[in-house]
Amino acid sequence: FNIVVLPGDGVGPEVALAAQRVLTCIGDIYGHRFDFTEHLIGGAAIDAVGESLPEETKAACIASDAVLLGAVGGPKWDGAPVRPEQGLLAIRKAMGLYANLRPLQVSPVLAHRSPLKKEIVEGVDLIVFRELTSGVYFGERTRTETSASDLCVYTVEEIERVARAAFQAAEQRRGKVTSVDKANVMETSRLWREVVTRIHAEEYPQITLEHALVDSMAMHLIRKPRDYDVILTENMFGDILSDEISVLGGSIGLLPSASLGANGPGLFEPIHGSAPDIAGQDLANPVGMVLSAAMMLRHSFQLEDEADSIEAAVAAVLASGAVTADLGGALGTVSATRAIVDAIR
Amino acid sequence: FNIVVLPGDGVGPEVALAAQRVLTCIGDIYGHRFDFTEHLIGGAAIDAVGESLPEETKAACIASDAVLLGAVGGPKWDGAPVRPEQGLLAIRKAMGLYANLRPLQVSPVLAHRSPLKKEIVEGVDLIVFRELTSGVYFGERTRTETSASDLCVYTVEEIERVARAAFQAAEQRRGKVTSVDKANVMETSRLWREVVTRIHAEEYPQITLEHALVDSMAMHLIRKPRDYDVILTENMFGDILSDEISVLGGSIGLLPSASLGANGPGLFEPIHGSAPDIAGQDLANPVGMVLSAAMMLRHSFQLEDEADSIEAAVAAVLASGAVTADLGGALGTVSATRAIVDAIR
Ligand SMILES: CC(C)[C@H](C(=O)O)[C@@H](O)C(=O)O
Ligand SMILES: CC(C)[C@H](C(=O)O)[C@@H](O)C(=O)O
Repeated sequence: FNIVVLPGDGVGPEVALAAQRVLTCIGDIYGHRFDFTEHLIGGAAIDAVGESLPEETKAACIASDAVLLGAVGGPKWDGAPVRPEQGLLAIRKAMGLYANLRPLQVSPVLAHRSPLKKEIVEGVDLIVFRELTSGVYFGERTRTETSASDLCVYTVEEIERVARAAFQAAEQRRGKVTSVDKANVMETSRLWREVVTRIHAEEYPQITLEHALVDSMAMHLIRKPRDYDVILTENMFGDILSDEISVLGGSIGLLPSASLGANGPGLFEPIHGSAPDIAGQDLANPVGMVLSAAMMLRHSFQLEDEADSIEAAVAAVLASGAVTADLGGALGTVSATRAIVDAIR
Repeated sequence: FNIVVLPGDGVGPEVALAAQRVLTCIGDIYGHRFDFTEHLIGGAAIDAVGESLPEETKAACIASDAVLLGAVGGPKWDGAPVRPEQGLLAIRKAMGLYANLRPLQVSPVLAHRSPLKKEIVEGVDLIVFRELTSGVYFGERTRTETSASDLCVYTVEEIERVARAAFQAAEQRRGKVTSVDKANVMETSRLWREVVTRIHAEEYPQITLEHALVDSMAMHLIRKPRDYDVILTENMFGDILSDEISVLGGSIGLLPSASLGANGPGLFEPIHGSAPDIAGQDLANPVGMVLSAAMMLRHSFQLEDEADSIEAAVAAVLASGAVTADLGGALGTVSATRAIVDAIR
């Protein structure tokens, strides 16, 4: 398997290395060969070649079997003419990664570390399907002396394809989709609600569909997170809501994501960002990145057993208390990764 | 004082009545005369006269000393050609109410009812300044067979005036403003950040200003809500974040808001919506509306003692356990209101 690794900025390189170690171990055990090729993205690419997504990186990603991304961004590039994040948005668009999957399971061992009460978060098991290649992220922008604007656009087709992905996931899960919009204000949200309602009626009538407004959803996700199974939403709302719930399981450092397109390679990255304050200090939690690698095995390579093996090892290590500082532990990135590798063995 | 009351839909009329009872009691004690005139808005206006904000309501609001609003909206008008919410947006715009103030104090008596752990929410005391008359709420919308769009626009002047309001509030509080945007993606956010930074440097250098991205803010508000004093943000982000934190104090039914313009009357409404499921059953918590009336006394009429008296009465009643069902109590709207009136007396 030909895997492109984009370490990126901040803690990105450290966690990207952790994922490679774990995958190499899986390869040894199950007899697969994972070839890793590193390429530049984000601030690292700006520093090296002056652009956040070099052509060469883009071409390598598109030609790969899957992409692992660490993180991009940091205050270092705050005033820069090119922003690291542009590279991330550009690679999502170039690879056509319209569905961003962000699963959240609250581990019983870590529920006590949640800011929410144990009885509210225990047993949470949901997945956010965030539309990733449209909306206000990719609309036209204007700027004058006295004003600025951003355009949010959605087409029927863009809504249909991510809705189908969410309904299909719900079929394999508890059979419920909660679609989130702001239909009492936004025209794109009214279209969103219509299209999701139609796809449901025509293609997935056996799934339970409910609609929620983004403001009340932001509230309900804290009050009763266990009520949700699959959450389907547009790009910006998905960004906000998935970050909101990222702390429910005790640390954002635990959470993986998968970004998938129609066909072609997927991109796998932890939810946490570049965390420049702890970069280069062997402090980052490798679990989010390692679980992203497991999602890669499952979604891109159909290697179910191998993915299960990583997830079981992570669960065992978390239960044993061999964790990084964000979870109150004493391990560094390297030793926490070693604990996972040992558990797989 | 000439007060326009807009009861609106759902539980709106019940809580609007509660506020009038409390104000009448305050008037008796302190020797003020509050004249209340009811007008139609929202679904109630659509049912009666076919539009969500009749001209006559608009004119009465503009000519008043202050406006009390219950709530608008409900599933009854879901398919309707005119939406109740349009009336709310139109009156905010017509009255020029650019600053929406949403204070949140977690009462020690109720901290245990929060979905968050007591040690995280205890002592929270913050206020959101949400821009209320611009952004995606009021931009151009388009709709074709195959797509839809919403335009988010901000002018320098729109940002300046709400920023000044937030900095002024911070001067009277703990001296810190957290400005929330999505400057790594949106052009309006980059303008927002520039203007807020400039107003701070030129006019309020003694205030501590920090910038946060809306996604990480959605997370931090759950992890460490006590860190915040004044939160300043644009219309849509303010809608989402203020609803998110509305449950921190135990019930959204407790929370008031004030919407203020440059001069002219303000509008005061609880954060909770029309709650159609419990409407007309004497179940709604009157506290959010009653505290909104206290904000009216303070912000529109400079009646500090009278506002304090309402707030002290509410605190006493909450401490005594004389509360509605949303707080686990046995009182109805009417008897909970009576308890507040008795406490004032
Ligand atoms: C870095 C930023 C542009 C990005 C986004 O908003 O999509 C990040 O927050 C994410 O969620 O992956
Ligand atoms: C009813 C709706 C249009 C409104 C808004 O989004 O502003 C409400 O959610 C609010 O926060 O006052």
